[in-house]
Amino acid sequence: MSTKIPHLITLADVPTAQLTRLLSHAHALKQTSTPWLLPHGQRSPPKSNAKGAKSQSKPKSLRLPPQTLFSKSIALLFAKRSTRTRVAAETSTALLGGRALFLGRDDIQLGVNESARDTARIVGGMCQGIFARVGGNEEIEELVRHSPVPVLNALSSMWHPTQILADLLTLHEHATDFAPEPTDPFAAAPAEKNKTSSLGSKRNVLPSLRPLTIAYVGDPNNILNDMLVSYPRLGHRIRIGAPAKYAEPYFSDAASEQAEVMKRVEALGCNGDGMLTWTSDPREAVKGADVVVTDTWISMGQEDEKAQRLADFAGYQVTEELCAEGGASPNWKFMHCLPRKPQEVNDEVFFGPRSLVYPEADNRKWTIMALFDQLFGRWQLDTSVTTVLGEDGEVKEAAEEETQE
Amino acid sequence: MSTKIPHLITLADVPTAQLTRLLSHAHALKQTSTPWLLPHGQRSPPKSNAKGAKSQSKPKSLRLPPQTLFSKSIALLFAKRSTRTRVAAETSTALLGGRALFLGRDDIQLGVNESARDTARIVGGMCQGIFARVGGNEEIEELVRHSPVPVLNALSSMWHPTQILADLLTLHEHATDFAPEPTDPFAAAPAEKNKTSSLGSKRNVLPSLRPLTIAYVGDPNNILNDMLVSYPRLGHRIRIGAPAKYAEPYFSDAASEQAEVMKRVEALGCNGDGMLTWTSDPREAVKGADVVVTDTWISMGQEDEKAQRLADFAGYQVTEELCAEGGASPNWKFMHCLPRKPQEVNDEVFFGPRSLVYPEADNRKWTIMALFDQLFGRWQLDTSVTTVLGEDGEVKEAAEEETQE
Amino acid sequence: MSTKIPHLITLADVPTAQLTRLLSHAHALKQTSTPWLLPHGQRSPPKSNAKGAKSQSKPKSLRLPPQTLFSKSIALLFAKRSTRTRVAAETSTALLGGRALFLGRDDIQLGVNESARDTARIVGGMCQGIFARVGGNEEIEELVRHSPVPVLNALSSMWHPTQILADLLTLHEHATDFAPEPTDPFAAAPAEKNKTSSLGSKRNVLPSLRPLTIAYVGDPNNILNDMLVSYPRLGHRIRIGAPAKYAEPYFSDAASEQAEVMKRVEALGCNGDGMLTWTSDPREAVKGADVVVTDTWISMGQEDEKAQRLADFAGYQVTEELCAEGGASPNWKFMHCLPRKPQEVNDEVFFGPRSLVYPEADNRKWTIMALFDQLFGRWQLDTSVTTVLGEDGEVKEAAEEETQE
Repeated sequence: MSTKIPHLITLADVPTAQLTRLLSHAHALKQTSTPWLLPHGQRSPPKSNAKGAKSQSKPKSLRLPPQTLFSKSIALLFAKRSTRTRVAAETSTALLGGRALFLGRDDIQLGVNESARDTARIVGGMCQGIFARVGGNEEIEELVRHSPVPVLNALSSMWHPTQILADLLTLHEHATDFAPEPTDPFAAAPAEKNKTSSLGSKRNVLPSLRPLTIAYVGDPNNILNDMLVSYPRLGHRIRIGAPAKYAEPYFSDAASEQAEVMKRVEALGCNGDGMLTWTSDPREAVKGADVVVTDTWISMGQEDEKAQRLADFAGYQVTEELCAEGGASPNWKFMHCLPRKPQEVNDEVFFGPRSLVYPEADNRKWTIMALFDQLFGRWQLDTSVTTVLGEDGEVKEAAEEETQE
Repeated sequence: MSTKIPHLITLADVPTAQLTRLLSHAHALKQTSTPWLLPHGQRSPPKSNAKGAKSQSKPKSLRLPPQTLFSKSIALLFAKRSTRTRVAAETSTALLGGRALFLGRDDIQLGVNESARDTARIVGGMCQGIFARVGGNEEIEELVRHSPVPVLNALSSMWHPTQILADLLTLHEHATDFAPEPTDPFAAAPAEKNKTSSLGSKRNVLPSLRPLTIAYVGDPNNILNDMLVSYPRLGHRIRIGAPAKYAEPYFSDAASEQAEVMKRVEALGCNGDGMLTWTSDPREAVKGADVVVTDTWISMGQEDEKAQRLADFAGYQVTEELCAEGGASPNWKFMHCLPRKPQEVNDEVFFGPRSLVYPEADNRKWTIMALFDQLFGRWQLDTSVTTVLGEDGEVKEAAEEETQE
Repeated sequence: MSTKIPHLITLADVPTAQLTRLLSHAHALKQTSTPWLLPHGQRSPPKSNAKGAKSQSKPKSLRLPPQTLFSKSIALLFAKRSTRTRVAAETSTALLGGRALFLGRDDIQLGVNESARDTARIVGGMCQGIFARVGGNEEIEELVRHSPVPVLNALSSMWHPTQILADLLTLHEHATDFAPEPTDPFAAAPAEKNKTSSLGSKRNVLPSLRPLTIAYVGDPNNILNDMLVSYPRLGHRIRIGAPAKYAEPYFSDAASEQAEVMKRVEALGCNGDGMLTWTSDPREAVKGADVVVTDTWISMGQEDEKAQRLADFAGYQVTEELCAEGGASPNWKFMHCLPRKPQEVNDEVFFGPRSLVYPEADNRKWTIMALFDQLFGRWQLDTSVTTVLGEDGEVKEAAEEETQE
């Protein structure tokens, strides 16, 4: 077994097959864990979120989730506030038998009282994993360089891998909400079909999802970046609607973070076959969209630019009208990583039946749990697994050694 | 079994029979837990706090407290500091096998970064209970409206249910400190006599308590409010000594919180039969008192009113002299929810033999543990239980469906 | 078994035999715990850190560390930030089955909202141990006076016992790095030889360490203080290199903390036989040194004195040149409690092969774990144990009742 330390900064680090495995694993962990969270004495098996799933036979007895963090401590190094991510991490660590240790900006000031290098080495010397929510991407790269244990990116200026994994799980669970697309050449054999996770009996199988058209409307940020390096590999097209001046850095020759993202997009082949469409017209962006995604226009640290940004994004608010005018799919669904402000999406959409925002938030827990189990508990994320996992949770065959940058 | 989500904002929400059951349950949990907290190798059974209890036979082997929070996480949403309440919650959650997740004002800013609605839904989607210490009462009502899991009020502008439950447990444990009152018509058959808790063998029986006269002297606040809706139902009279201008809002027609309290008092019949006596003379208030209770005159957020309040409450300090002049019972005891300032009670009383303040503080843990077990662990607090619990901890008969407002 | 509450403010409180036992116990806990912290499925026995140890036979099956904090909560009362100490405490409490409850300066303001007396009594009424990082030493003495459970000093103005215990464990683990010193009269029979811990089979035996010459160069502070009351008792000589004005308070008649330290030094006989050498010449200080220790010149709270202190300590930076010129042992090693600033030690030394700073930081965890187990879990630290512990972990013979001040 490899003793190389696995780290995850972006979904671009993860081979496609493993991306699918992680989703299946998260789905299985959710099924296994849910009965333990019911009121005492009510531990019936959980209802499947996949409305179209058939033959959901009930388990005979309860099984605990894998206790791969038993007696272990996971450091949550959070330079900025991030409630959802924190609560998801703390609660899922508990389910894996471990202890999450929250170290906020007042506890650890990266680069102020102590170098990131010393922090990584010392926290990593006492904890069995580091889940880091930093500012600039170079900070998490510094942690990766010096940590003796796996580092997982909880959110950086450039990437937000755990959010996109939660979004994908949510889409799979709502697969039957999307009308079939018979003309789509991918529909016959979705890549993840019939895959089982390490915990998996048939009932835990992740519902398969046909290739979708996903519109991202608004401010191109770390959310979009991790979509760009993952969705196309799973067959989903992305249509980006953003003001030209916000899209430009992606196509600039300068050493911007956005240009770095596009290098990863190209290396993974995510920009081929019309998979990515860029436009400055939000109506054009939502054309044919099965899913519309947005995020706040003013992220933490951008409060000074508020007036300018409100002006720049005028007309990009996600509404029924915008999507009707642009020609979104009649069944279009809405996603938002939260916290939400009314500027980018109105109440009718946000609180309406198209909104997947709450299941999406709930799934932060299960996808983070899958990553914690694989990365911190087992150190099994540096390898491209081309076959299914065995029943004992061990890898049967492994190939395609993943190169971390 | 009901799937309605139980919540608890005030003891007014709790049927009288269940109030007594909660006290018995807290007492039993304390007995069961204490041996586990002794130094390793010294796990003898705990000494009873009930000095008059007979035949305390020793248990043959140790039993764990009910692990009804196993693998579960309880969110402590604390918009304001509250050390005692927090420590009680974190330590009792551990004894029930669960994990408490403290989210302070820097972690969660209700209504600032995110709506209370979204916070309730999202935290409640990942945790199995919300213990909330908010500002205005409307904030906890908003949490109740949107949370998918039980909400328990840790302290609001209007109510402080967990404190009053701890006070009641303390009084029961010190039952023999109060001289018998043969002329009292309630003395013959105290309501809670011979009740056993869900954990209860005989040795764990909560000592019964004769009806007491309890004086509240000082600033009428959330402490008094939860006394008003609970003590009279258990047979205890309350004498309130407060300056007229602080008592007036209770009898005003305006939509004050105090007027709302009095509606609950009336609905529960707590103001009948001379159970409540209001006076602006602190000496008159302590007349015949078995217990004298006070609280700080300047609560969090009232620092600006300090000079005015010190003037208003001049003469209300609890002292031996005041109680002698007013004619308190010779055995009178003192309670205070802490933190204490010397203004409202002098050192002689606070640190003297009449003071129950430290046992009272310790009992925060056991009463919160009882509520966490019943509310978060079992969802069994929305029902008026008219019969004792069976040995398996399940309700044998249930009646009087409680209406939550 | 004694029911006296044990506390530990400084290593001066600990009898010499018990000091050695604590080190052996920490070493054994480290061996026992390490396999549980490996990636799931890789639980082979840990490699010994003692390079010279022979016959490291592998254990047949894994044993859990002693679960002496099971169901228990330990309060971390931290008036000042202290990341290493906090993380060590939280992670080792988890390994002992307990829960650490971090209460920072915003949660508990000793002496501001509530007296230290009430805090000690109330937190001690709900938790099973208090690990306190305070300002002035009088604050921890106040906690000790009123706490109903053991108090352990996590760092005070005057003492830092857990750091020095970690330093000692690190030196023992690196015993073979120090050349034999045949002329040293102590070398024949080091005091701690062949001692086994309460968990100990032969393979867990702490490597013995010959008497060393240890140079402390820089600002005499709480680190030095706990060295002064412990190292000489284990046979190690200390050479202190500090500007005269910083050393003077140790020899003043005034009631300084430093004068109080020297009283403890004298009472323990730590200043006899040329064990302590004071000089204001840093070169003279490192003469013959096996180990060079320093600490920041500007501790928390001394930021105002920065310019003055930088001037005062000019020439005291630990470098290869300084040690070569002063005549340190060719094998000299470097220790620093962290966080480090480049002023007091240059990069060549700090990051070079002489540096023990990271193993030293890691050992904070294991020595704190040993203290938590013995002090909070078992209440077994108030006694001078003159014989080895039995296999069941119980004391076979006890003598020399330790007098706590």
